[in-house]
Amino acid sequence: MKDASFIQSLFSIFLLFSDTASVAADPNLLQDLCVADLNSTLRVNGFACKPTATVSEADFSYAGLATAGDTNSTVVGSKASAATVEKIPGLNTLGISMARVDYAPGGVNPPHTHSRATGIAFVLEGTLEVGFITTANKLISKTISAGEVFVFPRGLVHFQRNTGTTPAAALAAFNSQLPGTQSLALTLFTASPAVPEDVLEKAFQIGSNEVDKIKDRLHPK
Amino acid sequence: MKDASFIQSLFSIFLLFSDTASVAADPNLLQDLCVADLNSTLRVNGFACKPTATVSEADFSYAGLATAGDTNSTVVGSKASAATVEKIPGLNTLGISMARVDYAPGGVNPPHTHSRATGIAFVLEGTLEVGFITTANKLISKTISAGEVFVFPRGLVHFQRNTGTTPAAALAAFNSQLPGTQSLALTLFTASPAVPEDVLEKAFQIGSNEVDKIKDRLHPK
Amino acid sequence: MKDASFIQSLFSIFLLFSDTASVAADPNLLQDLCVADLNSTLRVNGFACKPTATVSEADFSYAGLATAGDTNSTVVGSKASAATVEKIPGLNTLGISMARVDYAPGGVNPPHTHSRATGIAFVLEGTLEVGFITTANKLISKTISAGEVFVFPRGLVHFQRNTGTTPAAALAAFNSQLPGTQSLALTLFTASPAVPEDVLEKAFQIGSNEVDKIKDRLHPK
Amino acid sequence: MKDASFIQSLFSIFLLFSDTASVAADPNLLQDLCVADLNSTLRVNGFACKPTATVSEADFSYAGLATAGDTNSTVVGSKASAATVEKIPGLNTLGISMARVDYAPGGVNPPHTHSRATGIAFVLEGTLEVGFITTANKLISKTISAGEVFVFPRGLVHFQRNTGTTPAAALAAFNSQLPGTQSLALTLFTASPAVPEDVLEKAFQIGSNEVDKIKDRLHPK
Amino acid sequence: MKDASFIQSLFSIFLLFSDTASVAADPNLLQDLCVADLNSTLRVNGFACKPTATVSEADFSYAGLATAGDTNSTVVGSKASAATVEKIPGLNTLGISMARVDYAPGGVNPPHTHSRATGIAFVLEGTLEVGFITTANKLISKTISAGEVFVFPRGLVHFQRNTGTTPAAALAAFNSQLPGTQSLALTLFTASPAVPEDVLEKAFQIGSNEVDKIKDRLHPK
Amino acid sequence: MKDASFIQSLFSIFLLFSDTASVAADPNLLQDLCVADLNSTLRVNGFACKPTATVSEADFSYAGLATAGDTNSTVVGSKASAATVEKIPGLNTLGISMARVDYAPGGVNPPHTHSRATGIAFVLEGTLEVGFITTANKLISKTISAGEVFVFPRGLVHFQRNTGTTPAAALAAFNSQLPGTQSLALTLFTASPAVPEDVLEKAFQIGSNEVDKIKDRLHPK
Repeated sequence: MKDASFIQSLFSIFLLFSDTASVAADPNLLQDLCVADLNSTLRVNGFACKPTATVSEADFSYAGLATAGDTNSTVVGSKASAATVEKIPGLNTLGISMARVDYAPGGVNPPHTHSRATGIAFVLEGTLEVGFITTANKLISKTISAGEVFVFPRGLVHFQRNTGTTPAAALAAFNSQLPGTQSLALTLFTASPAVPEDVLEKAFQIGSNEVDKIKDRLHPK
Repeated sequence: MKDASFIQSLFSIFLLFSDTASVAADPNLLQDLCVADLNSTLRVNGFACKPTATVSEADFSYAGLATAGDTNSTVVGSKASAATVEKIPGLNTLGISMARVDYAPGGVNPPHTHSRATGIAFVLEGTLEVGFITTANKLISKTISAGEVFVFPRGLVHFQRNTGTTPAAALAAFNSQLPGTQSLALTLFTASPAVPEDVLEKAFQIGSNEVDKIKDRLHPK
Repeated sequence: MKDASFIQSLFSIFLLFSDTASVAADPNLLQDLCVADLNSTLRVNGFACKPTATVSEADFSYAGLATAGDTNSTVVGSKASAATVEKIPGLNTLGISMARVDYAPGGVNPPHTHSRATGIAFVLEGTLEVGFITTANKLISKTISAGEVFVFPRGLVHFQRNTGTTPAAALAAFNSQLPGTQSLALTLFTASPAVPEDVLEKAFQIGSNEVDKIKDRLHPK
Repeated sequence: MKDASFIQSLFSIFLLFSDTASVAADPNLLQDLCVADLNSTLRVNGFACKPTATVSEADFSYAGLATAGDTNSTVVGSKASAATVEKIPGLNTLGISMARVDYAPGGVNPPHTHSRATGIAFVLEGTLEVGFITTANKLISKTISAGEVFVFPRGLVHFQRNTGTTPAAALAAFNSQLPGTQSLALTLFTASPAVPEDVLEKAFQIGSNEVDKIKDRLHPK
Repeated sequence: MKDASFIQSLFSIFLLFSDTASVAADPNLLQDLCVADLNSTLRVNGFACKPTATVSEADFSYAGLATAGDTNSTVVGSKASAATVEKIPGLNTLGISMARVDYAPGGVNPPHTHSRATGIAFVLEGTLEVGFITTANKLISKTISAGEVFVFPRGLVHFQRNTGTTPAAALAAFNSQLPGTQSLALTLFTASPAVPEDVLEKAFQIGSNEVDKIKDRLHPK
Repeated sequence: MKDASFIQSLFSIFLLFSDTASVAADPNLLQDLCVADLNSTLRVNGFACKPTATVSEADFSYAGLATAGDTNSTVVGSKASAATVEKIPGLNTLGISMARVDYAPGGVNPPHTHSRATGIAFVLEGTLEVGFITTANKLISKTISAGEVFVFPRGLVHFQRNTGTTPAAALAAFNSQLPGTQSLALTLFTASPAVPEDVLEKAFQIGSNEVDKIKDRLHPK
């Protein structure tokens, strides 16, 4: 009874930063600007630079975070939009990027990691319960409102959810040009090829029926 | 005819990030968390860490950016508020921080540098003309509105001004826990002890009367 | 009917690298040696250094990886032993560490991340199916035997399992003095305080009964 | 009555490191040598490497600092010569470079920043007043003579002037292959396109006549 | 009476990591994977990346360390095999690599440095005397057996020798994708062109006859 | 017949940078200044910082390179003087340092490595043959005169010798606050405790008599 488009939108959150890695301490720049040549077929660590003559102010700006994402389009009730080097080519070699997340009432940005970046989120509107878990398995969480910020240390599992009755939105910054995101339920249960069932059964101490049920619900039809 | 409190507020912008450094690629962390012990008398690169037992969610959040700064309090018509490791001790070793700048109509955040960080600004409200100058002396600038972002590469001189008829505000992120700021007119004309007059005269190709006039206007009485 | 000691041993794997972070590019050293003073009450990024006069060869060696871990003691059939800066104080500032993992036949090292390090594993004996998942949700996996190596890129979810009928063992190296580990099922379902149930229900698209069942099985009694 | 060639020479100082940035902590090398292929059309962070077979000792040496610059050619009475990766291709990926500055009696190297490097200067001959200003607006300065060294921390505004009655010269080293230089008066008053007049008026608290006068004097005719 | 093939094999140890550099703190990655395109004619710091579509699990594994090297083939009685980015293209940008060294009874891995990496060695079998010398000229050494590990800090001269009566083997990990090796006797006495004799005579306080004798013995005929 | 004081002076060159490490890419600074508190008993990576109130211009300058070292005092005919963080406390966290080397006619700065830094040398007077050896065992060398510069890549073995008939001097810069030096003949033949004779015999393919002779000549009596 799950709607495929719902599931697909769950994926759209997950894939936001895909084919990317994460940040935290990107290598330093070696010149003022090395604006990403996103069309180059050459691949290096990061991106090759556009010819200087073609660089303009458009390479350093982005309007894609101005409007709220459609939180009705996802099963988890949240929708993220990234502003990484893939959208702002001027970010190449500069070690920073942004994202916007919108949340329906009750909406959740499910537990995920950014392998290459610490994140810091500023609440644009609404009220969010936010938290991260340390490697000592301690949850550090707080409920924050519009104008408040919260920090998610590099690589640690974290989440947010809208505990209010109105929509919420947050602006996040990352100290990487491409922070990388692994939404953990999707990573574990929808990877392709699939993670061996036995690995999931042992990890969660569940049976194959339960593994299949989760896979079934999370996989886009 | 300059009001001393006006001048003082110009200083308050300048001193925001003072006694700090700049960002871009802070050293990597060596453990999950090293929450700054801001009261420690020990000084290291960054800050020593608080005992783990005293760490709480309060170390990772901050409410000080929630309200607009008083732009009437400054001669330049802008007011900045920082959220660096000095306000959010949990940022220590994590390589990121934030700031909020409010602008009266016509208000200017005067040309400055962050010696240790690239900045990226998101317009919360209003319309801003923003720009940076490369070491090849090329100005890259743009007018952006609410929801748009713009990038200021590490170490380069940059500025913003409110070109609208209503107040404006921006949220900036930096890839350093303490980005460092040098507001250039103040750095050059109000340092203590003073930069030698002859240096300023030769640099700007002006006479001592003109140097003194600028100093007089910028120095808090 | 789960034996508490079994569950506890699952925890012991998870906690191996706890209170640590992950690696990949630790900051560079500023002197030949800065041997960790593990007894110091001072906490900095990494560890303060012992007095030079007390440094000896014992600070650079470790015998704790010589014998196999007891794989019967865990529900997942694997047992890890770490050789990080916490065991080898000479590793402080040097950006590298090791671990040994033993696997019963069918044993699994469940999906986990190292937030601060890339890992590379060498099979000491037996046959292992090993794999990692990219942020584009692609599984890259292989079955390797004694003497073969496999790479797990920094921050990405990965696992191993013994597909043979005899015990297996692997030696892993990490490019951090303290790589940090989050065993994901345990992180999500056994953190303290608990991750909100609603977050887990939405993430895995399961009901509260199923969440409770997993928590029950994973939590040490 | 300003001579255009004089002004032009002021520019020549300013442009010395142009189209470059500065370093401080360039990324580490990944092989012994990656000699810059200065003729390559490919642009990456830094430079692509020449084929190994074409590398010679000439790539690691430079004679351009051997003779004094013509300090009569500039309005400020100083002349700088850079030995960055653009002159010594072997410096690529190695994180260091040099420059020589000559000063007529009374000559000034006007206030400037290196966005990517700390500098350290050794006085070859003569006597120099040298200084830098911290972000807390404190001037740290000293008069040094032949054989003495002084440090200019990364990103901070600094200057030198010849306080003697004979020519002076200094050799500077930077911890970047391309340190980047912004000579601040020129950056602010001669950028192209121009920094908005209103921004300069507010920053220096001067009128448009004064802004125009400075621009007029600093702009090459 | 020296057999040329013996000498050649001494060289084979020395050249193992040649045309490489060393590690310790390779620059951070900017995406999940940048698998080295070892066939590309383009040279950058490290390697350019293969197209994503051609990446497979084979890029992350290596079987070349599974079997012992032929220690009879060298005059020093040891034989090293490297598993760097040149063998495992997936290591590109990941900052780690491995090597295996086999030792005949009495065999020695002669004094050498890794310019870009700290090493950590795990004894696979046998007994080794291992040591490094600090810049204060202090030898830190120890005899270790199967299962024990020892650390060799970045850049410092170090060695191993088999003090047992049976073959020995060690697995080493480095925190660089290409650690670089300079086997010092060979570097000094067999470089091409030759290091000036006078330099060697003064360094070792020996005569030209003695220099020539060492050169003669170390140079492959 | 060797004079002990001669030998001792050979040592003085070798120990110049001792108890130090090497350079290349020191971690970035996290504030404007962290002037080394050289008297602190606390040891961290680098040095703890002095209280800000005690910082002065003296912390950033040094006069110790102004005069030539006594080249008669050494058997190799060269004498080095370092200006590292141990002499200029303001260099702490800034990633740069300097040294001066004086050479008698025919004097040699014997083959050595800097484990943590690339070096770049500027000839102050005289003529020097300078060179480094790559890990592919290729010597890259050149004869340079006053005013010329040459680069020595991080970690690689290098040397200089005065090929002229008059004294020579060079000023070197390093991209580390404490570059670390291992003068190789001394490291191998005079370490304490001694490197096992068997290791040296096998490395240089010489007998124990020859090892003892070199040790005898290099060891201070």
